[in-house]
Amino acid sequence: MRLSQFFLPVLRETPKEAEIVSHQLMLRAGMVRQASAGIYSWLPLGFRVLKKIEQIVREEQDRTGAIELLMPTVQSADLWHQSGRYQAYGPEMLRFEDRHGREMLYGPTNEELITTIFRDGVKSYRDLPKNLYHIQWKFRDEVRPRFGVMRGREFLMKDAYSFDLSAEAARQSYNKMFVAYLRTFARMGLKSIPMAADTGPIGGDLSHEFIILADTGESQVYCHSDLIETRTPGADLDFTADLSPLIASWTSLYAATDEKHDRARFEAEVPEAKRVSARGIEVGHIFFFGTKYSEPMGCRVQGPDGGMVNVQMGSYGVGVSRLVGAIIEASHDQSGIVWPLPVAPFEVGLINLKAGDKDTDKACDDVYGKLTRAGISVLYDDTNERAGGKFATMDLIGLPFQLIIGPKGLKGGEIELKERKSGERMTLSPEAAVKRLTELVSARRVLA
Amino acid sequence: MRLSQFFLPVLRETPKEAEIVSHQLMLRAGMVRQASAGIYSWLPLGFRVLKKIEQIVREEQDRTGAIELLMPTVQSADLWHQSGRYQAYGPEMLRFEDRHGREMLYGPTNEELITTIFRDGVKSYRDLPKNLYHIQWKFRDEVRPRFGVMRGREFLMKDAYSFDLSAEAARQSYNKMFVAYLRTFARMGLKSIPMAADTGPIGGDLSHEFIILADTGESQVYCHSDLIETRTPGADLDFTADLSPLIASWTSLYAATDEKHDRARFEAEVPEAKRVSARGIEVGHIFFFGTKYSEPMGCRVQGPDGGMVNVQMGSYGVGVSRLVGAIIEASHDQSGIVWPLPVAPFEVGLINLKAGDKDTDKACDDVYGKLTRAGISVLYDDTNERAGGKFATMDLIGLPFQLIIGPKGLKGGEIELKERKSGERMTLSPEAAVKRLTELVSARRVLA
Repeated sequence: MRLSQFFLPVLRETPKEAEIVSHQLMLRAGMVRQASAGIYSWLPLGFRVLKKIEQIVREEQDRTGAIELLMPTVQSADLWHQSGRYQAYGPEMLRFEDRHGREMLYGPTNEELITTIFRDGVKSYRDLPKNLYHIQWKFRDEVRPRFGVMRGREFLMKDAYSFDLSAEAARQSYNKMFVAYLRTFARMGLKSIPMAADTGPIGGDLSHEFIILADTGESQVYCHSDLIETRTPGADLDFTADLSPLIASWTSLYAATDEKHDRARFEAEVPEAKRVSARGIEVGHIFFFGTKYSEPMGCRVQGPDGGMVNVQMGSYGVGVSRLVGAIIEASHDQSGIVWPLPVAPFEVGLINLKAGDKDTDKACDDVYGKLTRAGISVLYDDTNERAGGKFATMDLIGLPFQLIIGPKGLKGGEIELKERKSGERMTLSPEAAVKRLTELVSARRVLA
Repeated sequence: MRLSQFFLPVLRETPKEAEIVSHQLMLRAGMVRQASAGIYSWLPLGFRVLKKIEQIVREEQDRTGAIELLMPTVQSADLWHQSGRYQAYGPEMLRFEDRHGREMLYGPTNEELITTIFRDGVKSYRDLPKNLYHIQWKFRDEVRPRFGVMRGREFLMKDAYSFDLSAEAARQSYNKMFVAYLRTFARMGLKSIPMAADTGPIGGDLSHEFIILADTGESQVYCHSDLIETRTPGADLDFTADLSPLIASWTSLYAATDEKHDRARFEAEVPEAKRVSARGIEVGHIFFFGTKYSEPMGCRVQGPDGGMVNVQMGSYGVGVSRLVGAIIEASHDQSGIVWPLPVAPFEVGLINLKAGDKDTDKACDDVYGKLTRAGISVLYDDTNERAGGKFATMDLIGLPFQLIIGPKGLKGGEIELKERKSGERMTLSPEAAVKRLTELVSARRVLA
């Protein structure tokens, strides 16, 4: 993509309304613009990150055998009366009437709707287990939306719903999502820690939040420091095997959010030198709630003995749009964002130091063409801006690698390759730079 | 995908509430379920078609240089007061208040919002032309929603917005979208005809609807029959060249929707034998409306002479969710849907005639693995249903090719390959079938 043809309205000043660094950087880097309080437009740069995160979430859901569908944003209130949540849910639920005066709402979650879809489509235990998920916009009418996309009103979420014949089988479905979440966040360059958590308005009695540690995190969390070192399961994991031992390796060490924290237990179970008390950001939340929805909504299947059984359900959320902010909170420096490569809007930024100079343009076009044909995504700054401005913008938007090409270097047959994170620079021939970059990019795309 | 692990709740009976064939078939084939009046959940099979259509739309937008972003579904009414459309738009607009009593709405279109984004991000004529698009859910509170996804309340639309310095330059932006639409629909196996059309609540004085002909179409249309034969531009088209001559080849022949139809002109311009009067379905609509939004909303850029100029705008819609129904209206038979391959939910359906039989299972697994590794998408019916039921389901869901494997054929070393559309059958060795299918599928993926 040539910058001259892109739409990247960067801001040189930090907008006053933004309190936290991810919000500041997303505005400055031209990733989002507020449409109204807590509601954002995703500009092209931000949209590309959102899509990359969405795709990683999708691939890891699919890997577990979960099946994607798509439920609408607007729901009938009738369903929520059936489950009993219409009254229970607070003013965060956006309620309205359609032109015929029917009560409707903008879905904050989808337990009710998916339960009816499953109920009407599946009749026999033979069709279980099933896990159905979608990635859809939700609305939560926060009283004071803030922190940008981290706590917006309209937000993109992946929510999966599992259906099983027994509580034991449901536990395996829960465990699959548990592992998928570890992998999902690790692929985005995040170290997530599953923590015992409250269930809130979703209900149920088994729940984990997936937390990433960041100084600017929204809540206090407590855990055993060994959890930070625990290895993420590889892509070769067999999801049909019993996952309990693997889950136990994560849940046997102390980890709890503020609401679930038990100081006495923490101090008894965790040696002082291993006690981590830190700020955390919630990026995922999983629940097992048994028959909380299936029973009132009549979601039953025929069991092996012919009798009808209420299905056992769980639900599993990932905050897709919130992750964009969370990743920035976890990965930035004084100059701007530092994207982990798998979620970067482009993998390489190419800077032409003298646009309009024939030799420089030719060298840039050549490198741009070679990288693009090698399947590497490149943002090519072909504009007339001054070099200083180009460097600042490229650091601000945080692409993992920068290639800098100017007439001086070209005289000696050299261009510069800079890694955004470390700031390390190498001077290479254009051919060697393309080769080196291709290797570096390939290596970082995959979770080891 | 193994059918036993998929979620495909087909219906044997035609649901009474469905009036038109696409709605009937989408319900029967387990593609959608109504969540409430005019609001649908997209089940996995339907979701896959929706995503394929969305991706074709995206690729053809990108080919023109249009840039993707994403605006939210919920908008503030303030913007619509600025443009003057808040009062003008009828009860089809879903209006509501948030918890603080602020007037909000579920966007039926995005001219206002994109105008503010552009206004705040672009200051100079040097950044023009630009075309920004998104693919997002919209809401239109139809008084009597019907015809399934063809006239739903919550619907997925691609809407693009062009910004130019002059009306002449804007005409080129309009022409690019005109050509992109021809290609977009052709890639889905549809013959679309651009027709002079009314502008309605969007405004402006230049507008074309893209219509596909189908006996069950919603409106009457009139055109010169040569338009049905006119060749769609190839992928090698240079979008930076002047497109006027190409557009003229489409617009010089008579074509008009009912509202714009001029019988006297039709009869004067079109020889009797060439007059087509038929039913049509609108799948796209493009508009040029000059400064209708830029002027009231203060969207100006600095021109080459230093003065401020109101930008010239157009907007360009494709009904992504409606296309799923439209394609079925145009392509089905007595047994069910007949998908054009580029939008088919899977390219091949594999039928195991004796699941549980060791040799048959092995042959099926083998073919399934080979096709999948060759990058072909396969739905493998590995269930225990009777052969008759399997054949009926496979015809109903309309995958372009079927492979049928049973113990009898395998004894002679043979399996059957059936083309859904023609009903033609071939008997081949498994190896030959895989080879033949790979060729057939590759050939149909690309628009010539």
